[in-house]
Formats: sequence, C-alpha cells, structure tokens
Amino acid sequence: MDRIVVIGGGPAGLSAGIAAAELGAPVTLVERNAFLGGRPVEENYASITPYLEDAAMVMGRMEERLRAAGDVEVLLSSEVVHAAGDGPYGLTIRTPDGERVQEASAVVVATGFTHFDPGRETQLYGYYEFPDVIALQDLEAMLKEHHVVRPSNGEAPRRVCFIQCVGSRDRQIGNEYCSKVCCGVASKEAIEVRQLLPDSEVFIFYIDMRMYGYWERQLYWPAQEEHHVQYVKGIVTEVLPKDGRLLVRGEDTTMGRPMETLMDLVVLSVGMEPSPGTRKIAGILGLAQNKFGFIEAQQPPLDTVGTSRPGVFAAGAALGPSDLEDCASSGGLAAARAVALWRQHQTVGAR
Amino acid sequence: MDRIVVIGGGPAGLSAGIAAAELGAPVTLVERNAFLGGRPVEENYASITPYLEDAAMVMGRMEERLRAAGDVEVLLSSEVVHAAGDGPYGLTIRTPDGERVQEASAVVVATGFTHFDPGRETQLYGYYEFPDVIALQDLEAMLKEHHVVRPSNGEAPRRVCFIQCVGSRDRQIGNEYCSKVCCGVASKEAIEVRQLLPDSEVFIFYIDMRMYGYWERQLYWPAQEEHHVQYVKGIVTEVLPKDGRLLVRGEDTTMGRPMETLMDLVVLSVGMEPSPGTRKIAGILGLAQNKFGFIEAQQPPLDTVGTSRPGVFAAGAALGPSDLEDCASSGGLAAARAVALWRQHQTVGAR
Repeated sequence: MDRIVVIGGGPAGLSAGIAAAELGAPVTLVERNAFLGGRPVEENYASITPYLEDAAMVMGRMEERLRAAGDVEVLLSSEVVHAAGDGPYGLTIRTPDGERVQEASAVVVATGFTHFDPGRETQLYGYYEFPDVIALQDLEAMLKEHHVVRPSNGEAPRRVCFIQCVGSRDRQIGNEYCSKVCCGVASKEAIEVRQLLPDSEVFIFYIDMRMYGYWERQLYWPAQEEHHVQYVKGIVTEVLPKDGRLLVRGEDTTMGRPMETLMDLVVLSVGMEPSPGTRKIAGILGLAQNKFGFIEAQQPPLDTVGTSRPGVFAAGAALGPSDLEDCASSGGLAAARAVALWRQHQTVGAR
Repeated sequence: MDRIVVIGGGPAGLSAGIAAAELGAPVTLVERNAFLGGRPVEENYASITPYLEDAAMVMGRMEERLRAAGDVEVLLSSEVVHAAGDGPYGLTIRTPDGERVQEASAVVVATGFTHFDPGRETQLYGYYEFPDVIALQDLEAMLKEHHVVRPSNGEAPRRVCFIQCVGSRDRQIGNEYCSKVCCGVASKEAIEVRQLLPDSEVFIFYIDMRMYGYWERQLYWPAQEEHHVQYVKGIVTEVLPKDGRLLVRGEDTTMGRPMETLMDLVVLSVGMEPSPGTRKIAGILGLAQNKFGFIEAQQPPLDTVGTSRPGVFAAGAALGPSDLEDCASSGGLAAARAVALWRQHQTVGAR
C-alpha cells in the first residue's frame, strides 16, 4: 500500500513524521544514520536555542512521539537510492537488509544541512592549521562533556572569541545568504562558556546581530547583562599564532579602527550548506535547486514546502537556512500536504 | 457536527484553513473583517516580501484555494465572543445574522498583529505632529497607488528616510523583541520608492540589519547595488521640523559621530504588537500569553503551535513577530494538529 515517505530523521523530518502519522497516514521514515535526531544528536549538541534544554532529550521526546503516533516504520542506516514514476513514486530504499521498493503517495524531503567547511578559507582563520581554532559544533561537543579546553594543551581558555558569518553573507565564497541561526547559537554557547568558566572573557565579533523575534530578550540581552559576553561589531580578517596564543586581527567598525587582540580559543561560527543528502536526493527526485544547492520552494512565500515535482514536499534546512521553529512548522505543513495527497490516492484506489 | 474553527483570515489563518480542509476536515473560518486576506489586504499593501508580488493577488490566490478546498464555511464580519467547554469547545460566534454556537474539536487562533502606534513615543519622531512623518503601512498604501508624495504639500519627496526599530528592541517602551520583518519590509519599500522616484535619495537608519536567510541576496544587496538605497548604521534620536522639511538627528555609529540631516519624508519602521483580536481571544479562551500579550507556545522550539488549552493551537503573528513564511508554515502545523484531534473525536463519536 502507498505510504508517506519522510526522508530524514532530524527536527524537520521528525516533525513531519509525527504530524503525518497523527493524521492517520502510514509513514515510513528513512534515516541514513543508525539513530534519529539529526544534527543535534549526530554532532552531540549540548543544548538547543533558546532555552538551553538538553538537545538529546528534546530530540528523544520527538522520537518517542513519532513512535507512538500510529503506523510508523523507521528505517535506520537506510537511504533512498532511486525513484520511479511521477507521483505516486516507487522509491528504492537501501536498508541494512538489502534493497526494497516502497510505493509513496507523497514524499517529504527533510535532509537538512551540513556546516560550512572553514577549510575552504583556511588562509584566513587556520581551522585546519591551528588546534585552538575550532567551529561551533566542536565547542558544542565540548560543552556536552562540560569540559571546554584549548585542544593544543588541554588547559581551560581564559579568552575565547567567536567569529560570526564564517561561510555566510560572503560573496567571495558564493554563499550570499545569512545562515540565520549562527548569531543565536554563538550567543547560546557564549553563555554556556561563561557559566562553565566564570573566569573567562568571551567575545563575539559580528557584522549584524541577527537576533530576530524573541531571541533578542531570550539570548542577546541576557548574554550581555547576566553573563557579560562582549559583543564587538567588527570584521576579523585573519587569525595568526603568536606566543602560544592566537592573534585575532581585523577592524572594529564601531570604533572605526584596526583591532588586534590575543585569544586562547577561537570559535568559527560556520554557516549552513545543503547536506550531501539534500544534494543527492534532489538529483534522485529531480528537484529544482537554487544556486547554493538547497531545494527550491516553488511558490514562496506562502507555500513554503512545495517543490518542482508533484507530491514531493521539502521541510526544514533542506530548503535553506532554518532555525528549529522553522523545521517544526514547515515539517507540519509538508505533512499536511502529503497526507492530503495520500488521502486522495486512497479514495481513488477504493473506487 | 464538530468542525475545526479557524479564527482569523490572514496569511496564517488562510494557510491553516486550506491545510485543514484539504485534509478532509470541515472548517469554519471566522474573520472580523468583511473580507479575507488579513493585514496585506486590510492595509492595502502594495506588494509582499521578498519578490514584490502584488499583495492582493497573492492573498486572493490563497482565498481561492481555501474556497476550493472542501467543506469550508467562511464567516465574514464575525467574531468568536464566548467559549464553553474544555475541548471540544462550544464557540459562540457573533455574525451579521446573529449569534450561533459552533462545536469545535479544535481551534486555530490566527488573529495576527497590529502595528506599534508610534504616537506612544510621539515626543521623539512626531508621527502625529508632522504630516511628513509616516509609518511603513502608510507608505505601502501610497505605493499601492503608485503615488508617493509628501502629505504636507503633495509634492514628490527628494530625500526619504526609514527609521528602523520603532517600537521594537526597545526596553523603555517594553517591547524587548525584534519584530523580525521590518528590515525586510523597509528594504522592499525603499526599492519601490527608488523605482517610482528615480531622482530620490533613500536612506535606512538601522541598528542591525536583520536580513536573515535569503533576504540578504533577495533584498539587502539588490537594494544597495541596483537601487542605491543608502544604509546608515545609526540611531535616530529625534525628528524636528526645519525650513519646511524634517531635521533628522541622531548618531552615526559607524562614523562614531553625531548626525543631522534634512529629509522630505520620514518613514517609521513600526514593529508588531498583538492585535486587539489576539488579546481578546486569549481572554475568551483563557490562553497563556507572554508579557507582551502574544499567545505563548507551550513547548517551543519544536512544537511551535501548542497553547495552554487542549485543542487550541495558534499560528502566525498571534504567537509573536512572524514573516509570511512563518505564517504559512505554522498555519500548516496547527492544521495538522487540529485535524488529528478532529479525527479522534470522529472515531470516538462513531463508537
């Protein structure tokens, strides 16, 4: 029988799967990892924005709700490798037990993002050259262990800085978009570093603080007022080793002057790029993509989930930079559209 | 029979109504205006972000889709005035034909926002004192008519400026949130002014440019590069009349010096506050609200639509500052949750 196939078991895929199954449709969720939870679980996020709740626990709650939701089949360590038809689709799924074909009335693509690889601009910040230059997700893993140290010597850092917009808002590298969440995530991690290491000084070098909606008061003001994180409007142009520490050079645009400052730990706020899964599934299903490789919604802004193929919907960061709320909400709309189509097919089939 | 009642016929309510009806649930949509389309229609928006499409046309497409979606009853010039029960609810709806009671398995609250009234800080910007100080929505109405003039003398303005964060990010007036869309809307309107009046100079005074996601390349860069809109990081502290024009005073924070400049037209980028309808329905249904009066989601970030009452979901700007994508997506999730509940009630009722 036709099912709804959700591809991806992160925040958007779980949201879509829950909504579809609670609407009474049979759901097959295909996840390439051996576990559900997406990036927050895969990359060992300590906590999620904006309330600093344990990431694994939040994602675990979603997994429980999915598994309790009705006719739900979860295929782990599995991938969609081929699609036949033009809606409904016959999807070939490679599972640990071999390949199978699943008829799908509708497909929800929730294949998410990957972090920008700062090695692509290694000449600027030295991500692969200097051990104490790390990325947001590296710091998350340390925060998860409640153990934040300089990788070079295992000591607690006294001065920590975040550099925003690494791989975002950057025409030279071709990512002419804002990755939407990095300001919030950096502020959240900065708060956690200050809580864990009260003697540390923490700086955030930013172009614009994109703390839209409630993040302003949930993260940005508390970071400054309660946790004394120091926000510096400025552009960092290079990071160099000096005296066993890191020299951060750039321009302080508020003061209007060049800036040089020593840090123990530099955290690159890397932006979002389409995940390999997003690129792959776009190819398999023949979905229109934008110039960055994200799946392109066809009728934005008021249909956020429709793709260029009938019966294929996309949700969350497969569509572009997304926060968790975006994932939950667009997952829900995608599920509603998918189930409406599945119901049509049931009615036709019953004739 | 139990229906799903959607309260509000703007972007979020239409999205929710469409999704619910396409899922086969009977929908009653209650709208206080005599027409659908919400703020974009009510306030005569010329076009919507980010693609400058005609606002009435876009909203009209949604209305058409709603009316074609199945068992949909639209009650215009109507209001929910009372609620009995604790899910399902018996909602008393006041219509032009008198009051009626509607049983509802689930309710979607999509009662939207209202613009911050800049008269609340009239001492700063003179919205009610100087005719050439207007707000975003006033300029929209002029753009709709392709006739942008100085209200004081009917002449085309040569120098136009936008002042961002009026009623947003402002602790003194109690709105400690960013209204999320004003940077995009101001940039969109600035582009349209430059298209309509090629001889004009257009300035945007901002604190941070909140052009998250794709807006960066859809609006922010084109505004600067193709349309020569001038962005000035600075805080405007007062607007005064001078020589028949407006003297705009403040601080240019990039240059680090005080700023005084003459403008012909000053546009206040007013933020979002809960609509009267949001405040009223929160009282009628007993929904938890945050300190600003918006309805509070109970399980954010990964359940964006659940409220403090069973079976009552909220979507769009009833929950807080929202862009059109937020409205479409959260409307969809709210519909999915509402229909799942309606189906349960049908099953129980059929026993």
